[in-house]
Amino acid sequence: MAGSTLGTLLSVTTWGESHGKAIGVVIDGCPAGLPLTEQDIQIYLNRRRPGQSRFTTPRKENDAVEILSGVFGGRTTGTPISLMVRNTSQRSGDYSEIASYYRPGHADYTYDCKYGFRDYTGGGRSSGRETIGRVAAGAVAAKILSELQITVAAYTRSIGPVTIDYDRFDLSQMEQNAVNMPDPKAAVLAEAHLDLCRKNQDSCGGVVECVIKGLPAGIGEPCFEKLSANLAKAVCSIGAVKGFEIGDGFAAAGSLGSQNNDAFYMEETGAVAKKTNHAGGVLGGISDGSDLIFRAAFKPTPSISAPQQTVNKSGEDITVSVKGRHDPIIVPRAVVVVECMAALTVLDMLMVSMTSRLDRIKNFFR
Amino acid sequence: MAGSTLGTLLSVTTWGESHGKAIGVVIDGCPAGLPLTEQDIQIYLNRRRPGQSRFTTPRKENDAVEILSGVFGGRTTGTPISLMVRNTSQRSGDYSEIASYYRPGHADYTYDCKYGFRDYTGGGRSSGRETIGRVAAGAVAAKILSELQITVAAYTRSIGPVTIDYDRFDLSQMEQNAVNMPDPKAAVLAEAHLDLCRKNQDSCGGVVECVIKGLPAGIGEPCFEKLSANLAKAVCSIGAVKGFEIGDGFAAAGSLGSQNNDAFYMEETGAVAKKTNHAGGVLGGISDGSDLIFRAAFKPTPSISAPQQTVNKSGEDITVSVKGRHDPIIVPRAVVVVECMAALTVLDMLMVSMTSRLDRIKNFFR
Amino acid sequence: MAGSTLGTLLSVTTWGESHGKAIGVVIDGCPAGLPLTEQDIQIYLNRRRPGQSRFTTPRKENDAVEILSGVFGGRTTGTPISLMVRNTSQRSGDYSEIASYYRPGHADYTYDCKYGFRDYTGGGRSSGRETIGRVAAGAVAAKILSELQITVAAYTRSIGPVTIDYDRFDLSQMEQNAVNMPDPKAAVLAEAHLDLCRKNQDSCGGVVECVIKGLPAGIGEPCFEKLSANLAKAVCSIGAVKGFEIGDGFAAAGSLGSQNNDAFYMEETGAVAKKTNHAGGVLGGISDGSDLIFRAAFKPTPSISAPQQTVNKSGEDITVSVKGRHDPIIVPRAVVVVECMAALTVLDMLMVSMTSRLDRIKNFFR
Amino acid sequence: MAGSTLGTLLSVTTWGESHGKAIGVVIDGCPAGLPLTEQDIQIYLNRRRPGQSRFTTPRKENDAVEILSGVFGGRTTGTPISLMVRNTSQRSGDYSEIASYYRPGHADYTYDCKYGFRDYTGGGRSSGRETIGRVAAGAVAAKILSELQITVAAYTRSIGPVTIDYDRFDLSQMEQNAVNMPDPKAAVLAEAHLDLCRKNQDSCGGVVECVIKGLPAGIGEPCFEKLSANLAKAVCSIGAVKGFEIGDGFAAAGSLGSQNNDAFYMEETGAVAKKTNHAGGVLGGISDGSDLIFRAAFKPTPSISAPQQTVNKSGEDITVSVKGRHDPIIVPRAVVVVECMAALTVLDMLMVSMTSRLDRIKNFFR
Repeated sequence: MAGSTLGTLLSVTTWGESHGKAIGVVIDGCPAGLPLTEQDIQIYLNRRRPGQSRFTTPRKENDAVEILSGVFGGRTTGTPISLMVRNTSQRSGDYSEIASYYRPGHADYTYDCKYGFRDYTGGGRSSGRETIGRVAAGAVAAKILSELQITVAAYTRSIGPVTIDYDRFDLSQMEQNAVNMPDPKAAVLAEAHLDLCRKNQDSCGGVVECVIKGLPAGIGEPCFEKLSANLAKAVCSIGAVKGFEIGDGFAAAGSLGSQNNDAFYMEETGAVAKKTNHAGGVLGGISDGSDLIFRAAFKPTPSISAPQQTVNKSGEDITVSVKGRHDPIIVPRAVVVVECMAALTVLDMLMVSMTSRLDRIKNFFR
Repeated sequence: MAGSTLGTLLSVTTWGESHGKAIGVVIDGCPAGLPLTEQDIQIYLNRRRPGQSRFTTPRKENDAVEILSGVFGGRTTGTPISLMVRNTSQRSGDYSEIASYYRPGHADYTYDCKYGFRDYTGGGRSSGRETIGRVAAGAVAAKILSELQITVAAYTRSIGPVTIDYDRFDLSQMEQNAVNMPDPKAAVLAEAHLDLCRKNQDSCGGVVECVIKGLPAGIGEPCFEKLSANLAKAVCSIGAVKGFEIGDGFAAAGSLGSQNNDAFYMEETGAVAKKTNHAGGVLGGISDGSDLIFRAAFKPTPSISAPQQTVNKSGEDITVSVKGRHDPIIVPRAVVVVECMAALTVLDMLMVSMTSRLDRIKNFFR
Repeated sequence: MAGSTLGTLLSVTTWGESHGKAIGVVIDGCPAGLPLTEQDIQIYLNRRRPGQSRFTTPRKENDAVEILSGVFGGRTTGTPISLMVRNTSQRSGDYSEIASYYRPGHADYTYDCKYGFRDYTGGGRSSGRETIGRVAAGAVAAKILSELQITVAAYTRSIGPVTIDYDRFDLSQMEQNAVNMPDPKAAVLAEAHLDLCRKNQDSCGGVVECVIKGLPAGIGEPCFEKLSANLAKAVCSIGAVKGFEIGDGFAAAGSLGSQNNDAFYMEETGAVAKKTNHAGGVLGGISDGSDLIFRAAFKPTPSISAPQQTVNKSGEDITVSVKGRHDPIIVPRAVVVVECMAALTVLDMLMVSMTSRLDRIKNFFR
Repeated sequence: MAGSTLGTLLSVTTWGESHGKAIGVVIDGCPAGLPLTEQDIQIYLNRRRPGQSRFTTPRKENDAVEILSGVFGGRTTGTPISLMVRNTSQRSGDYSEIASYYRPGHADYTYDCKYGFRDYTGGGRSSGRETIGRVAAGAVAAKILSELQITVAAYTRSIGPVTIDYDRFDLSQMEQNAVNMPDPKAAVLAEAHLDLCRKNQDSCGGVVECVIKGLPAGIGEPCFEKLSANLAKAVCSIGAVKGFEIGDGFAAAGSLGSQNNDAFYMEETGAVAKKTNHAGGVLGGISDGSDLIFRAAFKPTPSISAPQQTVNKSGEDITVSVKGRHDPIIVPRAVVVVECMAALTVLDMLMVSMTSRLDRIKNFFR
C-alpha cells in the first residue's frame, strides 16, 4: 500500500522528486525475451517532455533515460528493469518562497498535514515530473502489448469549451499540432482558447480520451478487480485527474436501457460482435472484445500568475502570484501519461487472466 | 489480484452467487474492541433489500445476516469477521432460458469468454446480489468511522433527466421517498420518469453522490494510492457504474484555474480552511480536511422486457425479451452500496496513514 | 496484510474460532472447470479430524464441509469458493477458567497484548481448529495439482527421538498406523514414546516431511518470492511450527561445497537431471525439476496436565494444570495441514510463473 | 508477486545484476522525519563488502551508496527513497565460459528453464550482489527501529563443525575476527577450518543467528501473517539459505511439553515475563516481549575450484572447475544481510500492528 507501487504480476515502482537528483522507475515482472532499447522508451518520454510548444513549461530537460538493469544482450531478462532519468534543470531558488505558504490547488498543504513537512522545491514528489516513471514503464508495457497486436492510443478530446467528435477525427493528425488534438480545425480553436488563458495569466482544463484496440474478450476479474475499476484507479492516480468514465460514462446515467444496451450479432467470420459500443468495451468489468474507450477529466493547472488568496505557515491570510515555469494546460502532455497508465493496467490484467481456466493451464504446462 | 478481495489493512473478501446457497463476506483486519451486533449490519442490508417500492424487483429476500466469527462478548476480536446471508428466494427455473443466449448489457458473454462457462442462474456472481457482501462489510466500516466522528452519506443525485442541486437539499428527506432523493419535489419528478420507463418496458440510469464529513487532512498516499484513486476503483467496481468524479469532476475540465482553485484562509479557530471546495476534499490525492464529495454514474438496468437483438450459443442472431424480477433502475438501491464502498476505502486508507510520520509512531509505542 | 489471506493469484482467506459457530475459508482465483464435490474436500478434512486414535483429542467433530458458492453443475466457476464447517462440539464451559490466566506456550498472552482482550474459549482463533480452512482449501489445490500430474505427500518424519530414514520407507504404510509414519517399525517405537508422554501428563514434538513430485523446473520467482521462501512462510504460519528446512537444510550448514552441490547429468531421454538432491528441488529459489523435499519442526503440544507456573490477569504468580481435550502430539494430525499449505503455495506460484516469458504469453493468446 | 518487492506498509523493491551498471533499491512507505545520510547506509554496506579478509572474494568494490530521492534537508520525506550503488569492478570476460554450461549448486539451470535465457555474467540477478539492495534498505529500517529502542544483531553461530554457545559469547567481539563470530576461541577454530577448505579448493556452510531486543509484545498477525512466518520467508529468500528456525527450532521437535513451555511470572516492576525462552520470543506467531531469536542455515558456497560434473547447453556431460572470485564461505558476509532482512520484516509488521485496536486508533486521531 506504500503508494508508489502498482500492479500484481507486472509491478511498477516509481520514485523521485521534481528537483531531486533523478527520477526513476523499477518494472518488475516484465516477461523475459522482449527486445528493448533506451530508444524504445525515449520516444515515449519525448512525448511528455517540456519545452515543445508555447503551451508547455519552458523548463529545459532532455529527460534522457538510462536502463540500469534487467536487459541483457538487448532483451529483457525477466528480472527488474530499472530506468532512470537525471534531473538537469533544477532551479531550487525559484521555490524558496513556496516553502512558507500553501499554493491553492496544490498538494502543499496536504503533504504538510500528512508528513509534518515537505520537499517544497517544485512540488517535490507531487510534481508532474513524477509521471516520468509512469511513462518510462508504460513504454515497455505498450511494446509488449504491440507484440500481442494490442494498441493503446490516447489524444486530447477537449480543451476548455472545445471538444472533438469521436467519430470524425484522424488520429494521424494528433501530433501535427501543439495540443495533441486529432482534428485540425478543433486544434486551432483550442490553441486560441489557450492563448486567451495565457494572456489572462490563467489556465484551463480538458479531457483526454483513450482507445485500446485488439484486446481479447475475457480480460478483467469479477467484483473488485474489474478491468474498468483498475483503469479508473490508474487514471485517477494521475495528478490532476478529477474524473473517469468508460464508454458512455456519465451520459449513460441519462440514457434508457433500450438505448444503452449494445445488441450482439454474429459476424460473417462467426465471431460474436456488438452493433454499438455504449459499454466502452467492458461488460461486468471484463473486456468484451470491442474497443475499450475511456476518458479522463483534468482540472486546470493550479499554478497561475494571477493573484490568489491563501495562507502562510505563520497562519496569516496572504495574496500570492505563483511564479515558476508552468504549463497553462496539463492535457497535451498528459496524453501520453494516460496512454501509459492504460497500457500498464491492461497488460497486468491480461497476464493475470491467463490463469482463469483449468483447461488452458493444463495446455500451458503440457 | 483474485478479484474478490479489497483493501490493505482492512481487507474484505466477498463470495456468493445470486441463486447459490448464500452470499457472504469476510472482513479481516477489523480493529478489536468495536461493539458489533447483527442488527448494526442488518440496518444497512435493509437499505439495499429488494421489494421495498414499485421500482425494485419484487423478489422477496429477508437478507438476514448471521455473524459467524470474529465477535466475542459483543465486541470485535481483531480476527476475521465472517458474515453470511442465506438466499431464500432462488428461482432457478426462471433462468434456464438465459443459459443459451447472451443478454445485452450483461456479463453473460464476457464470463463465458473468461471462464469457458458460467453460472447462468440470475447472473451468478455478476448479479447485483453480490453487493450484499459489500454492504455488510461497509456497515462495519461505517460504524468504526462514526466512532472516529467521520460520517459517510450517499443519496440519489439524479435519475434520468431529473437532478437535484447540491446546495439545496435536506438529507433527512432522503428516506422519505422511493428513490432516495433528498429533495421531495425532485423525487416526484423522478418517480414520474420511472413510471414512464416501466410503462415502456424500459429502464433508466442515474447518478449517486456521496459526502464524507469529518475526515482529517492527510489521509491518502502519494502517486498510485491516492485516496481519490482508491475511491474511483472502489466505486467503479460496483456492477453498473460507468463513471466516477470527485469535486467538480468533468466540469473542472471546462473550468479555468482562477475558478477551480480553492483559496485557503485562516478560520477564527486558527485552523486552515478553504473558501470553496471545487477539489472535493482532496489535493494531490490526499484529504484536505474539507468534505469529500464524489459521484458515480450508473447505467440503466440492462434487463428490460422490451425486445432486443442478441445471439445464442449456437451462433444465431435472435430477438429476446429478458424476463425475471428486475429493478427498472439501479440507483436507489445502489445508494447504500456506494456509501459502503466509500466507508471501506476511507477506513482502510486512514489506518494506513497512521504510519506516515516517525514522531507519531514513536508516540504510539511510548 | 490482514493476517488471514494468503496467495497472489490463488488467494485463500480463512476465518473462524475453535468454539464459534463455524470455521471456513474462501478460495478466490481457483481456475474454472475443475470438477469438485464436497467429498473431494471431506477426504482431506477427515485426515485432520480429531478422535481418530488415542493420541488425538477425544473432542468429537464431524467436520462436515459445505460448499456455499463457486461451484455450478459440479464444476468450479472461477469465482470465490466458500467452504464452511459448522462447529458442533463446543464446550465453552471447559474454558471459563482460562479466561483469567495465560497458559504457558499458548497465544493467550500475546493475543491479549495485541488486541486488548481475547476469545478465550478453546484458544479462539489461535486454536488448531483454524487449520480446517487451510485443509479445505488445500484439498482443492491438491486436486488441481493432480490434474497437472503433480503430487504432494507429507508424513511423520520423527516423533520425539524416533526418526525414519527417507530412503527406506513405504508411503503406502503411512495411514496404517496412528502416527502417520510410513515405517511400521518406527511407528511402534513412536507410539510407545507417546504412551509414555501421556502417562507422564506430558506431550512431545516431532517433524513432518513433505515431498512434491512432478513439479516442472522454472517455478518460483527470484529474490523475495522464491518458491522456498514462500514454502517457509506457509509452513511456519502453521501454529506450532518452530523450524523449516528444504533439502539438506541445517545439515547443509555443516557440509562442504563438494558434498552439497548436486551434479547435473544428461538422462537418456535427453532431459537434464541431478545425480543427488541435496538442494531439495530448488536452485536459486526456483524449482529444478527434482523432487521438492522439505521438513517442518513442530513443538510439543503446549496444553499439558502436569502442573505449570504462570500468571493470572490480576498479576499473581499461580500454578495451573491445563484441562480440556488436547492431543499429546500435534504432528500426526498436522501432516495433512503441511501437505495442504504446500499444495496452496506451489499452485499459486505455478500460476504466477505462467507469465515469465513473452514467447509463451504470445502463444497463449494466439 | 513480481519477486523483487517485499513488505506491506514498508515496501522494498530491489533491482540490479552482478555485472550490470548498478544495483539499487527503492524503499517506499518509510515514515517521514528520520534523519538520514548516505553514511548511515554506508556503514551497513561496508559490513557486507567484499575484499575484507582472506575468506571473501578479492573482487574490489567500493559499494558507495547514493541517495537519489526521498530525503530533503537531511530527513526522510515519506516518499520513496531510491538508493543506488554503481558496479565498478565488473569483469564480464571471466564469465563467458559459464554461458555455455550450468554450474552445480547455482541458479543457472533454473533461470534458463524459467526465462528461456539468462544474464550469465556473474550470476546476473541470482548473484550475492543482489543483497546490496537488501542491506541498504535494512540500514534504514534498523535506524528507525533504534529510534524505537529496538535493536537487531546477527552474528555467525557456526561454521562447518565449529559452533558457539549462545549463553557464553560477547557480541562486542564479533567484528574483531574475519568470521564475525563473537567468541575469539571459536573464531580461531573456524578460521582453521576455512583455511583447510580453501586448500582443498572446497567451500563450507554455516549458521547465522539473530537476536532482536526491545520488541514490544503484540507484534505480528494471526494465521498466515505470523511474525515468525514472515521472518522465515524473509530469511529463506536470501540466496543460499536452506533452513530457518526460531527459538529452540528443530530441537523443540525432540523436546517435551514440560520442557519446552516457557513459564510466565511477574517481574517486580509488575510486568509479565518468561523464565525461559524456548519459544524464541513469539507465541502464536505474535511477539511476547522476550528477545526474538532465530537462526538461518547457509549452504556451502556453490562455486568451488575442485572439478565437478555437469552438463552444457549442447546436452553433453562435462567436467568443470568454476573460476571467478568467490568467497569460500558465505556466512560472515551474510550476517548483515540476515540482520537487515529481520529489521525490514519487524519494522513492517510493527507498523501494521498499530491498527489492531480501536481504542488506540481513536487515541491516535484525537
